[in-house]
Amino acid sequence: MEELKVFCPATVANVSCGFDVLGMALATVGDEMIVRKTATEGIKITEITGQELPLETEKNVAGVAGLALLGKSKASCGFEIAIHKKIKPGSGIGSSAASSAGAVWAINQMLGQPFTPLELVHFAMQGEKLASNVAHADNVAPALFGGFTLIRSYTPLDVVQLPVPQELYATVIHPQIEIKTSDSRKILKTGITLETGIKQWGNLGGLIAGLFKEDYELIGRSLEDHVVEPVRSLLIPMFDTIKKAAMTAGALGVGISGSGPSIFALSKGEAIANNVAEAMAGVYQNTDLDFEVHVSGICSTGVKPI
Amino acid sequence: MEELKVFCPATVANVSCGFDVLGMALATVGDEMIVRKTATEGIKITEITGQELPLETEKNVAGVAGLALLGKSKASCGFEIAIHKKIKPGSGIGSSAASSAGAVWAINQMLGQPFTPLELVHFAMQGEKLASNVAHADNVAPALFGGFTLIRSYTPLDVVQLPVPQELYATVIHPQIEIKTSDSRKILKTGITLETGIKQWGNLGGLIAGLFKEDYELIGRSLEDHVVEPVRSLLIPMFDTIKKAAMTAGALGVGISGSGPSIFALSKGEAIANNVAEAMAGVYQNTDLDFEVHVSGICSTGVKPI
Repeated sequence: MEELKVFCPATVANVSCGFDVLGMALATVGDEMIVRKTATEGIKITEITGQELPLETEKNVAGVAGLALLGKSKASCGFEIAIHKKIKPGSGIGSSAASSAGAVWAINQMLGQPFTPLELVHFAMQGEKLASNVAHADNVAPALFGGFTLIRSYTPLDVVQLPVPQELYATVIHPQIEIKTSDSRKILKTGITLETGIKQWGNLGGLIAGLFKEDYELIGRSLEDHVVEPVRSLLIPMFDTIKKAAMTAGALGVGISGSGPSIFALSKGEAIANNVAEAMAGVYQNTDLDFEVHVSGICSTGVKPI
Repeated sequence: MEELKVFCPATVANVSCGFDVLGMALATVGDEMIVRKTATEGIKITEITGQELPLETEKNVAGVAGLALLGKSKASCGFEIAIHKKIKPGSGIGSSAASSAGAVWAINQMLGQPFTPLELVHFAMQGEKLASNVAHADNVAPALFGGFTLIRSYTPLDVVQLPVPQELYATVIHPQIEIKTSDSRKILKTGITLETGIKQWGNLGGLIAGLFKEDYELIGRSLEDHVVEPVRSLLIPMFDTIKKAAMTAGALGVGISGSGPSIFALSKGEAIANNVAEAMAGVYQNTDLDFEVHVSGICSTGVKPI
């Protein structure tokens, strides 16, 4: 295999009560990437369309993630990567993760799959480290595994794949303001009450049980975040109004995507997810804010050839 | 139906990372209770064997729970209850919950099941309130629903039934010292770091996913409690030694049962659970402590007629 074109899904991390542990991949929102095997060793980013991003390998998340993989492989070849960005950086739906995950997944395929999906997560995390100074896994894990993924533990890294109820659809609205990941970290409290913790793990347990049981009502009841949303939502324009509008339109639940500013909703069925999109958009339409709305199923495969 | 004899399972609450939310019922450890319909209204405790416990209805957890149910029913009859205790009060395996749950389950059956299992949990919680001043649900819920139960939320009460992997066995060792539930509450910190919280809900998510997937390794990796065990284990003689012995004997994981002093282990298969029992007992055999050890499957039904 000399060339591979892949779809790299956008991802929602910090799914409500699953702060820092639960992410999901979107089926129809994502980048495209073309990876070519070359005789020259190393990684070369040949082209980026759709966004202004660095072409230098060491400054590009796909380059860094690819190099991390090559550093552990015995490959005597190299790779050229062309990236066609459709996910906006800073949107909170895993733009850097899509590039990191796409690069390592495609290179691993072209090398004959020497690495496990979990090893690929490790490599892709190096791209995340470049993007936000922290080697997060909660976007790259769903981007690579697909569906919903739980990061049970970071040391050692333990990724658990969770089932995707068939009728579950996501609506994501991206108000085009900038929130730096580092700022949205700073606003978090370093401590929580035991009482709040109990609510949070009760809800995460309910959410995971709901995914396994395909119990949409239980999923909805469990989509409550008592820890992060109360503070981070302050950084997102009209969060409460958007949330209320989405719930009124029939969403099962609403939360902040990643560290924001995107807001996601989960709904049972595409029709309701579309109504939710309309309701969310209706709120920002009355303002000067630029925004984008996506409606998507959940991507059960992760990065895939197209 | 004029008389019903029931098995009332012992239960392990606070299953490791599931503090205050996750409990499980034991298949072969529990009380027996005989409930008879009478023409006289109200509840009369006619007999208690095995333990010294109050016969006065208002001072007996089964009496109080039964009265809570009758108060909401239109029954014009009453009930006599004979309780044959096999679970030691104060052992940390749901002695009061077994009596409360058994009483309301049996009475509900004899009245033609006017109440849902969730309503029965509410009634049984009144017995728990008498026993420990707090209306806990994490013992009465598994005693009534069977298997593993998650209390997703208390307000409103939301009980989620979880599957039971077939080969899962519990070993419980009860060092016969007294720890008051109120004392074991007092020792808890009221706050935790966000970092500890993330570990805890990551593990609870892993544990619940493990139960659904019948993934014993994942269940084992997830049986970690970073919140409560580090402090409460200080109240239990030789906790660390017992835990280490159980793990060496092959247990998937070890934790404090309820608020202690009993310690539980989960194992894959009865043979390993028996080895674990031997290893745990071996630790206390070298001391002056009196203790009891139980090996049991998980009770998938909850209270049941015998």
